[in-house]
Amino acid sequence: MARHTASFPVAGWVKHYDKQSFLSDLIAAVIVAIMLIPQSLAYAMLAGLPPEVGLYASIAPLIAYALLGTSSTLSVGPVAITSLMTSAALAEVAQQGTADYLTGAITLAALSGIMLLGFGLLRLGFLANFLSHTVVSAFITASAVIIALSQVRHVLGIEAEGDNLFELAHAIGMQSNNANFYTVLIGIATLSFLFAVRIWGASVLQKAGLSARGAELAAKSAPVMGVIATILLTVRFELEARGVAIVGEIPTGLPSFAPPVFPLELIEMLLVPAALISIIGYVESISVGRTLGAHRQERVNSNRELVGLGAANLASAFSSALPVTGGFSRSVVNFDAGAVTQGASIYTAILIALVSMLLTPALYFLPKATLAATIIVAVLSLVDLSIIKKTWRYSRSDSFALLITIGATLGFGVETGVSCGVATSLALHLYRTSRPHIAEVGLVEGTEHFRNVRRYEVKTVPEILTLRVDESLFFANASFLEDEVFLKLSSQPAIRHVILMCSAVNEIDFSALEVLEELNRRFEEQGLALHLSEVKGPVLDRLHRTAFMDRLSGNLYLSQHQAFRDLCERFHYSALAGQP
Amino acid sequence: MARHTASFPVAGWVKHYDKQSFLSDLIAAVIVAIMLIPQSLAYAMLAGLPPEVGLYASIAPLIAYALLGTSSTLSVGPVAITSLMTSAALAEVAQQGTADYLTGAITLAALSGIMLLGFGLLRLGFLANFLSHTVVSAFITASAVIIALSQVRHVLGIEAEGDNLFELAHAIGMQSNNANFYTVLIGIATLSFLFAVRIWGASVLQKAGLSARGAELAAKSAPVMGVIATILLTVRFELEARGVAIVGEIPTGLPSFAPPVFPLELIEMLLVPAALISIIGYVESISVGRTLGAHRQERVNSNRELVGLGAANLASAFSSALPVTGGFSRSVVNFDAGAVTQGASIYTAILIALVSMLLTPALYFLPKATLAATIIVAVLSLVDLSIIKKTWRYSRSDSFALLITIGATLGFGVETGVSCGVATSLALHLYRTSRPHIAEVGLVEGTEHFRNVRRYEVKTVPEILTLRVDESLFFANASFLEDEVFLKLSSQPAIRHVILMCSAVNEIDFSALEVLEELNRRFEEQGLALHLSEVKGPVLDRLHRTAFMDRLSGNLYLSQHQAFRDLCERFHYSALAGQP
Repeated sequence: MARHTASFPVAGWVKHYDKQSFLSDLIAAVIVAIMLIPQSLAYAMLAGLPPEVGLYASIAPLIAYALLGTSSTLSVGPVAITSLMTSAALAEVAQQGTADYLTGAITLAALSGIMLLGFGLLRLGFLANFLSHTVVSAFITASAVIIALSQVRHVLGIEAEGDNLFELAHAIGMQSNNANFYTVLIGIATLSFLFAVRIWGASVLQKAGLSARGAELAAKSAPVMGVIATILLTVRFELEARGVAIVGEIPTGLPSFAPPVFPLELIEMLLVPAALISIIGYVESISVGRTLGAHRQERVNSNRELVGLGAANLASAFSSALPVTGGFSRSVVNFDAGAVTQGASIYTAILIALVSMLLTPALYFLPKATLAATIIVAVLSLVDLSIIKKTWRYSRSDSFALLITIGATLGFGVETGVSCGVATSLALHLYRTSRPHIAEVGLVEGTEHFRNVRRYEVKTVPEILTLRVDESLFFANASFLEDEVFLKLSSQPAIRHVILMCSAVNEIDFSALEVLEELNRRFEEQGLALHLSEVKGPVLDRLHRTAFMDRLSGNLYLSQHQAFRDLCERFHYSALAGQP
Repeated sequence: MARHTASFPVAGWVKHYDKQSFLSDLIAAVIVAIMLIPQSLAYAMLAGLPPEVGLYASIAPLIAYALLGTSSTLSVGPVAITSLMTSAALAEVAQQGTADYLTGAITLAALSGIMLLGFGLLRLGFLANFLSHTVVSAFITASAVIIALSQVRHVLGIEAEGDNLFELAHAIGMQSNNANFYTVLIGIATLSFLFAVRIWGASVLQKAGLSARGAELAAKSAPVMGVIATILLTVRFELEARGVAIVGEIPTGLPSFAPPVFPLELIEMLLVPAALISIIGYVESISVGRTLGAHRQERVNSNRELVGLGAANLASAFSSALPVTGGFSRSVVNFDAGAVTQGASIYTAILIALVSMLLTPALYFLPKATLAATIIVAVLSLVDLSIIKKTWRYSRSDSFALLITIGATLGFGVETGVSCGVATSLALHLYRTSRPHIAEVGLVEGTEHFRNVRRYEVKTVPEILTLRVDESLFFANASFLEDEVFLKLSSQPAIRHVILMCSAVNEIDFSALEVLEELNRRFEEQGLALHLSEVKGPVLDRLHRTAFMDRLSGNLYLSQHQAFRDLCERFHYSALAGQP
């Protein structure tokens, strides 16, 4: 267990690498590479970039992650959501097909790499926790719908672009009469084939004699079969001349590995989109890494993951490609195909490099409709509408965040969607933590326990108010405590003593200390006493370093029961039985 | 108590208003007005605006707040910090002295008014809690230093502007040879007089026979005496001809009360500065209101305060003036002078209006050095360096936030300073709340209590891990719990049962529920059982609405002791005594 404790994760597996691991990794690499070829081309098309860029993003980034990442089976490269976000970000800075557009993509990858790396080195991985999982699910579902719709134009052979549901639906509606018959034929055929394989493929292959895992994996090669079949059809029936859009010439060879160069104003314009792409990419990747890691008792370290993904994105920028992250489907294939170490990713990278050098001429006649069908089938599996019903039943505030995110993404596009999601998460979080649970407690008769007066039948004294604070006190919630105390005081004028029961207070920060000092000062003016009970050791140590404990108008009690008994005895108060 | 429960706060005091209250309010109004005249002119100058703008900001805004605010003694108007922030924001959009500059100030007031009003109506007052008091103190101290330095040029009669400590110090150093002798004379004399009155004034006047409060209040008229004396000196010795800069002509009359008009791009440029001014202004104001309110058992409602301050800023925008907020010194004077209700502010506004209509010609020869001296003496009382030492002794993370804020404000100016402060507050808050306190607990022998294994001598069982979660579980901290669980599992391989003791868990949100489901799923795969104990009623009700409870690999126990005993009995585990 805890495999990756070395400061350089790669050292962990290289030491014990043997022939068996090599063979397992190589087989996985071949299967992943077969799956990645159409996917890389497709996601480059989704991002509005030339197809070779997708291949380039599947070479160096894989090697960078293999050397620095902590998951043994995560497979990085261009993925659907970040490719869509890339295209949305670049739509505002340049025209598709221009050199500036490509420079923009490289800039995004570089910025994203620097940010992720920076966050990792500063150990800020915990920040990703603030993007609630509910919001991420909502965002992915809505984005998948947008992605699928954005590809319909390639299946129909029309021009219909847009950033959100309405624009896309409108454009497709306006242009649908111009659909190209042969393109639609290719598109529908590929879609049907891919859907059929997805639904029945594995079970049919299993009946034909393949093992369960073998059938699963063979079914994953459906996109490549679609690619080969449609290329052959296009060549045989000269479909290009009949208006079917094809991928066309893809330069042969490897990307020139060079430091990316980009103008300063481009950085300024792409800073926010790069941050959003980094956050979403990271959250998607770490959840894949953790899910797979759990099956192998492998811990994925969030800060190391940031470093690994940061390096992968920088590698992508150096290869003149687009932002990358750990993808769900490719990683699952890698895992299922038996990858043992990140060696598999290195071999995958080598195979993709060979494809770039040797096989790109064969892709000349590949119809864009085929790639679009691949994307549509891939992303529709990301759509999860059940979460709407589940959150609605469970919690209204969670479903509120969910619906805001889905609505904003569908209605205004991915950038607004993810920004709204992040903002809603944070606002909900801030709201919740600013109101600590504070219970007025009383003595459970016959015991030394104190319980919430609203829920239990307990004894209280009109002159004594005991408040149990169920959270650490710090600047964001301290004034809430102050308000609560004065609210109680104004409704219960008999109170002479306030006991703060601090059994759940793990920390009191300086701002909260100032609030307590202020409370104490006001209590003295009004002839009241402030007492503390059950203060934890470390909290008390720190309080003793200040003048607060000397100035405390009341006493410090080890236990709440002791506090209650002492005050009752000294002032001859008698307890009243309350109702729950 | 709880005086302002009416939905329109003004109704509270108007009903019971009598002659005694009227007289008290009127006396307070006269004293505040005398203090406000030089202060209003000075803060307009600090903001880079014509002097009459300061007077205008002290008329309608006071009335707006009097009608809608909840504090009975808060006095609103231009204050030092927001005036400095106004000047910093406007430096980027227009040249001082131009019409555009004034339009900028009006836009800031209008935006600030709309924001505050909006936050108040949406009941978002709690958001101000996220600006830690430590950060605000640091910001005010550093800003006061910048303000004092920015006024040195008026005392020396030179040109020396800048946004931060270095720029100001450099500019003053470069220009100090050009100081004007008579200006320096006026400036130093006024400074000495004001400082002397501040230090010895009250005690001298008390010895001369005034009551303690009377002496305090009389000492507050020092700035007006300085104004009168230096005007007389300037006229008598024709100092204007000798190079002493004077205020010059101030238009006589009231501001034309008109809806502000401003270009859209100005709004875009000033949105962030307006937000910062609103936040700082609100936080300063509410803390003054609360401090004074405490002396009268008066509750200041944060959302109502937002509405009151929002209305005051809109009134300021309609009067062609600058952003306003509740000021500390003026409110204290109002309180000390015996103001009983917001009637005092209304009379103050009427008095300032009379000054604007009748007395402005008398201010023609007022030296700017006098106003600068007034500002310097006023803001230096805001400098509180003791807080650095106090926080350092108390908590390193608080003093880190403090030093970042002071450093950023001094080094880069107020906007960067307050942004860094807000960001540091939020980052610290997010960091703390994302790591809930989770303790591994064991049985205290001879009792039914479970305590932290690190602090107490408790009994544990190698096969059972009990974790007590000391906070509600939600998206920001749920994955931390997951990490903790797997960390324990990897270091204690004997564990077969994990009990989550939920006595301090007040809420489990949907994202946290998903984490628990995932934990449960993984536990099943690994042959482990997940148990829950001491789950609170409302939390359990909600969990029962999901499939989680049915799928739970272990059991639900009412008490932790029951859970521990049951598992030990069923599986014949025997407890080991541990060391603390």
